[in-house]
Amino acid sequence: MTRVSANLFVSLDGYTASDPTPENPMGDGWSQLTAAWGATRTVRERVFGDHSGARTTGVDDAHAAAFFRGVGAEIMGAGMFGLHAFPDDPEWKGWWGDEPSFGTPVYVLTHSAPRPPIVMQGGTTFHFRNEPIETVLAEASEAAGDRGVRIGGGSGVAHAYLRAGLIDDLHLMIAPVVLGRGNRFWDDLGGLEVTHRVSSEVSESGTIHIAFTR
Amino acid sequence: MTRVSANLFVSLDGYTASDPTPENPMGDGWSQLTAAWGATRTVRERVFGDHSGARTTGVDDAHAAAFFRGVGAEIMGAGMFGLHAFPDDPEWKGWWGDEPSFGTPVYVLTHSAPRPPIVMQGGTTFHFRNEPIETVLAEASEAAGDRGVRIGGGSGVAHAYLRAGLIDDLHLMIAPVVLGRGNRFWDDLGGLEVTHRVSSEVSESGTIHIAFTR
Repeated sequence: MTRVSANLFVSLDGYTASDPTPENPMGDGWSQLTAAWGATRTVRERVFGDHSGARTTGVDDAHAAAFFRGVGAEIMGAGMFGLHAFPDDPEWKGWWGDEPSFGTPVYVLTHSAPRPPIVMQGGTTFHFRNEPIETVLAEASEAAGDRGVRIGGGSGVAHAYLRAGLIDDLHLMIAPVVLGRGNRFWDDLGGLEVTHRVSSEVSESGTIHIAFTR
Repeated sequence: MTRVSANLFVSLDGYTASDPTPENPMGDGWSQLTAAWGATRTVRERVFGDHSGARTTGVDDAHAAAFFRGVGAEIMGAGMFGLHAFPDDPEWKGWWGDEPSFGTPVYVLTHSAPRPPIVMQGGTTFHFRNEPIETVLAEASEAAGDRGVRIGGGSGVAHAYLRAGLIDDLHLMIAPVVLGRGNRFWDDLGGLEVTHRVSSEVSESGTIHIAFTR
């Protein structure tokens, strides 16, 4: 069976970043929640093309390196792709740059009209699907071959897969902040420690890494 | 200035145990939230009088030992004392046994009619106060001398002191469970990491110990 994973940024009080808007494409709270992650050498290199090496290399970076390993296909919401920003521009290729860091097929969940796939440099192809999440997961699993499927986000998409019991490996990065608002992560997930094994680790940045593993 | 501390048990999803009832005096979730704490040698000895020594001695126990150090007075709610269980019995001395582990003056917040203090063995005296929380804290600080005041609980009382900005040292023990219900701990505490320094540690039991220090 294909393993399905998700990685999410959550505050101590259980909030993910608020929903993206055109003015605030990552949502309120995003920069606080992801500061430690964005400071790792792996993310600087893989996402931002910064090969200076002058970034953190500790526990956060080890998790970041694991994040990029073994993924054969990705599923994300339209907001994470950036579809809502320019919904009527057929030339818009999302905000992941000319060579997105995924390097795999990426299935974008959308309620919009079908659009053709977009082939990017570096192995990423965006496919747009208006189908149930289970159907898209089946297609992504097939495409992933012997590698895993990552549910990239946003948090609403990851939450839908979690509620449906479809995530095998959930990695939470809890930033040491009390946001007080955002999207509630933990709702409807009671008893997750019964179906999954829990382990936790605190990094040098104060980020609490929690892994739920089925 | 007297330092004011509180120690609370919280689930990963931010719930403390539900409010106590006569049938369930500790509230739903309490046993899951406190399992690791109750298994420490210090708590076995100090609270349960078990001197066999056959309990955990790691990170959880170090926090338990710190819990009992340097406290000169305690404040708790009527529910934690047990007042609601036998509200009309003037002989009822709470459910902490003949020799409670506090060993200090304990101020019990109550909306009930005044009742005389109860002197227990081992240095604990229960005082009943129907006053604003700030007033009771001032009296407890005076009584504590050069030691600290501990806000013992329940979670509602600790939350009231937190919201009022009166807690210097908050110690959370986050059990690796997703309760899905109970009392919401994090509400109205946004930005606590701005007024307090945050540090975290994971114990052998998987408990995440989070300290907020002003």
